[in-house]
Amino acid sequence: MSTDPFRIGLLGHGTVGSAFAELLEERAAEIERFNGRRPVITGVLTRTRGSFEEVLSDADLIVELMGGIEPAREYLLVAMRAGKDVVSANKQLLSQRGEELFGLAREHGVLLRFEAAVAGAVPIVRLLEESLAATPIERIHGIVNGTTNYILSEMARGSTYAQALADAQRKGYAEADPSDDVSGRDAAAKMAILARLAFGAPVRLQDVPYEGIEHLRADDLQYARELGLGLKLIGTAERRDGGLSVRVYPAFLYAGHPLSSVSGPFNAVTVESETITEITMSGPGAGGRQTASAVLGDVVSVMTGGARPPAPPLELSLLEDVPSAFYLHLDVADRPGVLAAVTQVLGEQGVSIKSVLQRGLGENARLVMVTHAVPESSLRAAIVRLEEFDFVRSTPRTICVIEEEFL
Amino acid sequence: MSTDPFRIGLLGHGTVGSAFAELLEERAAEIERFNGRRPVITGVLTRTRGSFEEVLSDADLIVELMGGIEPAREYLLVAMRAGKDVVSANKQLLSQRGEELFGLAREHGVLLRFEAAVAGAVPIVRLLEESLAATPIERIHGIVNGTTNYILSEMARGSTYAQALADAQRKGYAEADPSDDVSGRDAAAKMAILARLAFGAPVRLQDVPYEGIEHLRADDLQYARELGLGLKLIGTAERRDGGLSVRVYPAFLYAGHPLSSVSGPFNAVTVESETITEITMSGPGAGGRQTASAVLGDVVSVMTGGARPPAPPLELSLLEDVPSAFYLHLDVADRPGVLAAVTQVLGEQGVSIKSVLQRGLGENARLVMVTHAVPESSLRAAIVRLEEFDFVRSTPRTICVIEEEFL
Repeated sequence: MSTDPFRIGLLGHGTVGSAFAELLEERAAEIERFNGRRPVITGVLTRTRGSFEEVLSDADLIVELMGGIEPAREYLLVAMRAGKDVVSANKQLLSQRGEELFGLAREHGVLLRFEAAVAGAVPIVRLLEESLAATPIERIHGIVNGTTNYILSEMARGSTYAQALADAQRKGYAEADPSDDVSGRDAAAKMAILARLAFGAPVRLQDVPYEGIEHLRADDLQYARELGLGLKLIGTAERRDGGLSVRVYPAFLYAGHPLSSVSGPFNAVTVESETITEITMSGPGAGGRQTASAVLGDVVSVMTGGARPPAPPLELSLLEDVPSAFYLHLDVADRPGVLAAVTQVLGEQGVSIKSVLQRGLGENARLVMVTHAVPESSLRAAIVRLEEFDFVRSTPRTICVIEEEFL
Repeated sequence: MSTDPFRIGLLGHGTVGSAFAELLEERAAEIERFNGRRPVITGVLTRTRGSFEEVLSDADLIVELMGGIEPAREYLLVAMRAGKDVVSANKQLLSQRGEELFGLAREHGVLLRFEAAVAGAVPIVRLLEESLAATPIERIHGIVNGTTNYILSEMARGSTYAQALADAQRKGYAEADPSDDVSGRDAAAKMAILARLAFGAPVRLQDVPYEGIEHLRADDLQYARELGLGLKLIGTAERRDGGLSVRVYPAFLYAGHPLSSVSGPFNAVTVESETITEITMSGPGAGGRQTASAVLGDVVSVMTGGARPPAPPLELSLLEDVPSAFYLHLDVADRPGVLAAVTQVLGEQGVSIKSVLQRGLGENARLVMVTHAVPESSLRAAIVRLEEFDFVRSTPRTICVIEEEFL
């Protein structure tokens, strides 16, 4: 067992980079105790300081915490071609140029670890790459964006969207420009990475349709609660009919679902498989120190000789229009025959109703329904027909509903 | 990359052993695709069939699924001395003779994996050994026995203990002789293993005090629900005052606790640390196929070159009498001054009350209280004093309460 230090070249010294350097310092002695080598940072590259070539030549391992596509991508490619193992927390890069990085890692026989790119301190990458490497996975549901989960938790307690967002910004859970989070795009990048690991198919960010939470209304959450549902921004990746569906969308979950109790700025992922039923992992989704902890876990894994890079990609077609249950919110005139007309139109499109809540509002009534699973295109066709009725008072609203299948 | 098959010698062919052989057969081609070698079972030893020496000499890896101390221990020691990597699902052996096995694995530089020994398909061993290897852990709370969790879930829905146990036996969640599960001993073995991994201290089954669920009454669960509490059989391993406390006991959890929503025959473990806040993993706790899946994950991990055996043990003293909040159930005469007398006695022992529920029952009343954290010895001293009062109508009952610290 060598007693040389294990030399780390650090690219990026922002929130996560500086938290990583601090955590490494704190834990170096303990890592040396069980590993036999002491990890030390031998070079740091920031936007204004340092030379990449020098950092690279002094390092056994490159840790990339810069974010963004370039120059992070170029640095990682050069490092792997030089035979160095690499660790990255860069979800943008991995979700957009993952195959290029994975292929180069395989070609040069180097390790590429990226636990911190998805779900902060929750070791979901390792679960998929290692523990479940031999398990055929059927579906992943994830809450992979802590900002939106915090906002939805606050809305469930009565806040408006704007109040909850302002509160999240005040507490540091949302950025000044929150659009990447609230639009669902950040979650889509993470789901692309998870889908690649779980199903072996080359899913990229641009393949993942996403819908955010900006259009949700507090009263949707109130009605949903009466139906026993809680609202989350969900990423789904699932096998269906020989293809793969990956998407991000707000969804109602039944109270017994393992993700329904995950609140605040937490992340959680449920992996479903015939073999294992389901495994759920949850924990803090972000925070410099939590993310740094995931990076350090990757460093230790490289030091002990970890898993290989993902195998070459499989071909799996990406599906759209997969069936789902839906919440359907209609404002209608409160007069006889309306419910019958609505259910007939739904029935003609193959949309069957699981539960209905009707409430009078003076001359109008509000109909809130939960459907059984139906292709989204069928529901859309029904809504086009419903909008033609004069008794429909405003644009119908729909939100996906995820039902419990296992518990 | 070698194209020789990866040869597995299987010891034991009961429920888990045969499920493992079946799962390996199903998944061998996929494992070969990403690993480059195909795993095959080259020998099987059962109680009535096969020769250990032949199984050993034909194998790259020994998978022990026999259970019990001997001859499993002897076989694993011989295999490791012969330089073979080993995988075991044997919680009795690991919790009683773990240091001997770990030491021999280090000495001979072989891998020893045992994910399936704790919490079935939930990869908690890997979480502690690898993802959190560099993280100082403060506390683990676990629901690590699916049988008792199923029984308590049914009792929370109104069953008596006897009804719930019979139901669990009918569904295959409890054995004909359930004493190892309902006494807490099975959970204690698992907590000993987790404590060794999380804290590096040589904790053995015989070091872990345990209390089971046989004495719990359905009406405790009813009162607790009114106080917003749910009952679980909890294993705790935690650092305190430079020492370590490991124990198994029924405990009430506040509704927001990550373990409070884990119901049915599931297992779940929450790991707390200043660095990561908390990570929770949950999934099926048992079942032949789920356990076999964890064993297969270990096999794949050995094939790809996994983590080393645990480092030599640290010295940490094992503590008793750690402070906790308690649920206290008293049947008293319904007359003036009783509550004042009770609270005075509690106060004299430093027991302060967080919430009280009082209910009249004809001439008697029932007092149900939840205390703030207090050493168990102080509460016991108060109860000795309370039992001296003539207005106390039956033996006071206490159950631990775990409060939310993070969320």
